[in-house]
Amino acid sequence: MKKIIALLFGALLLLADTEFAEPKPSIDNPRKIVFPITHGDDESINHVLSSANNVMKFYGPEKVMIAIICYSKGIRTLLKKEKKIAARVRSLMTYDVEFIACGNTMRTKNIKKEDLIEGVEIVTAGIVELVERDLKGWIYIRP
Amino acid sequence: MKKIIALLFGALLLLADTEFAEPKPSIDNPRKIVFPITHGDDESINHVLSSANNVMKFYGPEKVMIAIICYSKGIRTLLKKEKKIAARVRSLMTYDVEFIACGNTMRTKNIKKEDLIEGVEIVTAGIVELVERDLKGWIYIRP
Amino acid sequence: MKKIIALLFGALLLLADTEFAEPKPSIDNPRKIVFPITHGDDESINHVLSSANNVMKFYGPEKVMIAIICYSKGIRTLLKKEKKIAARVRSLMTYDVEFIACGNTMRTKNIKKEDLIEGVEIVTAGIVELVERDLKGWIYIRP
Repeated sequence: MKKIIALLFGALLLLADTEFAEPKPSIDNPRKIVFPITHGDDESINHVLSSANNVMKFYGPEKVMIAIICYSKGIRTLLKKEKKIAARVRSLMTYDVEFIACGNTMRTKNIKKEDLIEGVEIVTAGIVELVERDLKGWIYIRP
Repeated sequence: MKKIIALLFGALLLLADTEFAEPKPSIDNPRKIVFPITHGDDESINHVLSSANNVMKFYGPEKVMIAIICYSKGIRTLLKKEKKIAARVRSLMTYDVEFIACGNTMRTKNIKKEDLIEGVEIVTAGIVELVERDLKGWIYIRP
Repeated sequence: MKKIIALLFGALLLLADTEFAEPKPSIDNPRKIVFPITHGDDESINHVLSSANNVMKFYGPEKVMIAIICYSKGIRTLLKKEKKIAARVRSLMTYDVEFIACGNTMRTKNIKKEDLIEGVEIVTAGIVELVERDLKGWIYIRP
């Protein structure tokens, strides 16, 4: 009897998990999420990259699209020479996570296209990209 | 005469306050607001808890629903052993403010359900909860 | 031939820039963007003011409306006595950027109306202003 109650209780705990909004995420209608990275320290960068990982694990990689926009000090995320971070970025890219660099930041910090990890997109202004994604239905979360 | 002008001027200042969006908040149609807590220092945590208080005072507790999602270092907000913070959390709970813990963070930091203040909900991933609330029409603000 | 390829390649890079959401920004239908300032250090404040500048440069000042809401330590942005910052604020005001002070913060920090730069609006609660703007279709971004 105790066991049954424990099982039921476990089930109730599971039921308390996040309820999906409608329409539920699917391959045809994936969640679209955009994260900014604006700080340049290891902890901040890793926090966002881990968030992307967790979100993908939850939805399943085919039911979520993730774009990560790096500007201000966050541009460090995208530098080839930061080998440890670059390895994590490349790994997320294999799951089609988009990485986007802010052109304004690149100009201010004198970063060249060839300094960036291959496959990174460049836009004129990181914040404008956030605004336009939001208007296209992407969910903007600052992890 | 001067007094009348002063009174009129005072009225004009009041009129400059926030204009409600339509439909206006009401008991049947309360504002729904979701705040994250991601930092673990007293100041950051108290800032969000005070923000919840201010928002409730402004709308009136029956015209607003507030959910506070704690993840990363912000999970400290929800620990029983942090007695001062826990007192504030419990006080907000009496006004039906929801407090939600990120299960991923709990696993990473080895925090057990029994370490959390009674009444806290647990979800698999704090950020996913933010995404789904947003899609259900909650307003996401990072205080 | 190499030159032509280089030119084409340059064109492709340009094409990778931010695509506008529909309807595109126009004088009749400008983008509406709201930024908070919540930190009081020079770097944080200047980061948001520069973001406002970059966004205006991108869209053109007549195709974007920007409101900057200052609360908590960010209220420093709006103090007359901070002459360097005040000069930047006044310069943005000439482009119709709105600056809004949180009344709750002013009361807590004992800041008077006359301490603020002329032209600043005051609302009861900065976060409520963010919520209501969001519901009126403004895009909330934390730069």
